[in-house]
Amino acid sequence: MKVVRSVAAMSRLAAAWKNCVVLVPTMGALHEGHLSLIDRARRAAGREGTVVVSIFVNPLQFGPKEDLSRYPRPLRRDLALCRERGVDLVFHPDADEMYAPGRSVTVDESLLTGGLCGRSRPGHFSGVCTVVAKLFNLVRPHAAVFGQKDYQQLAIIRRMVRDLNFPLEIIGSETVRESDGLALSSRNVYLTPAERAEAPVIRRALLLAGKRVRAGERDAGILRGVIEKELAAAPLGRVDYAEVVDAETLQPVARVERPTLLAVAAYFGRTRLIDNLVVSLK
Amino acid sequence: MKVVRSVAAMSRLAAAWKNCVVLVPTMGALHEGHLSLIDRARRAAGREGTVVVSIFVNPLQFGPKEDLSRYPRPLRRDLALCRERGVDLVFHPDADEMYAPGRSVTVDESLLTGGLCGRSRPGHFSGVCTVVAKLFNLVRPHAAVFGQKDYQQLAIIRRMVRDLNFPLEIIGSETVRESDGLALSSRNVYLTPAERAEAPVIRRALLLAGKRVRAGERDAGILRGVIEKELAAAPLGRVDYAEVVDAETLQPVARVERPTLLAVAAYFGRTRLIDNLVVSLK
Repeated sequence: MKVVRSVAAMSRLAAAWKNCVVLVPTMGALHEGHLSLIDRARRAAGREGTVVVSIFVNPLQFGPKEDLSRYPRPLRRDLALCRERGVDLVFHPDADEMYAPGRSVTVDESLLTGGLCGRSRPGHFSGVCTVVAKLFNLVRPHAAVFGQKDYQQLAIIRRMVRDLNFPLEIIGSETVRESDGLALSSRNVYLTPAERAEAPVIRRALLLAGKRVRAGERDAGILRGVIEKELAAAPLGRVDYAEVVDAETLQPVARVERPTLLAVAAYFGRTRLIDNLVVSLK
Repeated sequence: MKVVRSVAAMSRLAAAWKNCVVLVPTMGALHEGHLSLIDRARRAAGREGTVVVSIFVNPLQFGPKEDLSRYPRPLRRDLALCRERGVDLVFHPDADEMYAPGRSVTVDESLLTGGLCGRSRPGHFSGVCTVVAKLFNLVRPHAAVFGQKDYQQLAIIRRMVRDLNFPLEIIGSETVRESDGLALSSRNVYLTPAERAEAPVIRRALLLAGKRVRAGERDAGILRGVIEKELAAAPLGRVDYAEVVDAETLQPVARVERPTLLAVAAYFGRTRLIDNLVVSLK
C-alpha cells in the first residue's frame, strides 16, 4: 500500500492512471462504516482497479466552535485498517499542502445547503464541496464512494458533480450501525457511557416515524411530532433538528407524496450525532 | 474539424484523449486576438496534439442589464476561421446543454474579484469561474490559453486552478491590437465610427502612464491622474475605472514598488472597453 503525502506526488500519480480508480474520501478515525465504503469501492474498481482512500481532517468544513482540534486522528491504526482491507493508496496530505496561503476560491451550493445541517453549520458544505473538488482534481477517480449517513452531503456532492460536470460517478453506500441501531460515526467515541446508552433513540425515532408512514400517515407535522416525542424520552439528548424534507431537493414538505427524507441531528453532551431515513409511498 | 454540441459527447471524447490537448475557451465572434490564442494553443499542443476551441456565450457571466442578447454570434464565420486555423475540435453547446434546470453550484473567488471589473459587474467572475471549471471537466485539457487583455479574468482563473488543483497549465497570451493601438475585442463591432476613432485613447493613456513610471514616477495617485486626464480628452468616452493595483493580488497600491497593473475600463456609448498595462521597476 502506497502512502502519499504531497499534492504534487498525488497529482503525478493520477496523471498516469491506466485502470479504474475509485476514491473514498474520509477524515480518518476509520470505523466499520468507512470499511464498508472501502469494500464498496473495491467492488466498483474490480480486482485490477485501484482503491484510493484520502485521510484529511479538512479545517474548512469545521466552524470556529466545532471540534477541529479534538477530532480523533489515530493515523497508525487507520493505515493498518486500510492495509488489511486491501486499499492500494492512502492520500494523507496536511493542511499546508492542501491550502495555499491566501487561498480564495471556494465551491458553493445554494439550494441544498440552507436547511438541515447547513442551518447550524454555516460554511460547512462550502468547505466540503471545496475539498472534495480538490480531491477529485488531485486523484482523478472514475468513481467516489460516500456514506448515506451524511445524506445531505451526498446529495450536495451529487449536485456538484452534475453542475460542474466532474467526469466521475458518485456511489452512495448504506449506513452501517451498531447492533442497537446507532449509526457508526467517528464522533461516537466522544460519548460518555450514559450518552452512548441513550443515543440509539435517534434511530428508534426515525423507525417509528417510518412505520407511521407505512401505516398511511402523510402529514409531515405529525411525523415530526412522532420523532420529537420519541427523542424527548432521552433526557441527555438535545434536538438540533428533526425535519421532513423532499429526498431530492431537501426542501421541507407538508405531506409525504414523493420520496421523503426524515432527518435528525441531536446533541448528546457536546457531541452532535446525525441520522436519517428515506421513506416512500409504494 | 469535429464540431461537438452535446455535453455527453464531449465528455466521452475527453475520456479517450491520448495526446496533448489544449483548450481555448471563447464566446465566439472570433477576431485576430482569438486566432492568436489558437496559434498559441497549437504551439503548446504540438503538431500531433489536439486543439479544442469552445464557443459558448455564457449567460452566467452577463449582468441583467448587459449585452447577452445582442452579443454577436456569427457561428458560420467562427467555424470557418477555426477550420482555416487548423483547430481539431470545436465544442459549441447551447445553454440548456450546459446548465441543468435548478443548477445550484458555483465556483467563487473572493480576493481578486472585488475590484476592477468585478466592482461594476457583480457576479461576472463567479459566472466565468463556474463555466471555465465546467469546460475543464468536460474537455480535460492539459493546458488552456487565455488572453492578457482580460487580465483580471486570467489572474482569477490561475487562482482557481491553483486553489482547486485543476490538473492543467494556464497560458496567458499577449493582447492583439489594431494598428492604432485599440485592443481587439468582439465588442468593438458595437462602436460607431466616431467612437471607434476615439477608442484608442485607452491605450494611449496607459502608455503615457507607463512612460512616467519608466521616468521614475512611483506615486499611484499621480499615475491615475495621468490616465484620467488623457481619457478626459476623448469627449465620447466615459471612464468606468482607472486603477493602479498590485499585478498579483489586484489590490490597490499607493506606490509602484512591485510589478503593478495599470487597468482601464471605459464606455464609448453603451460599449464597455477594457485594456491594461503591467509596469515594473527593473
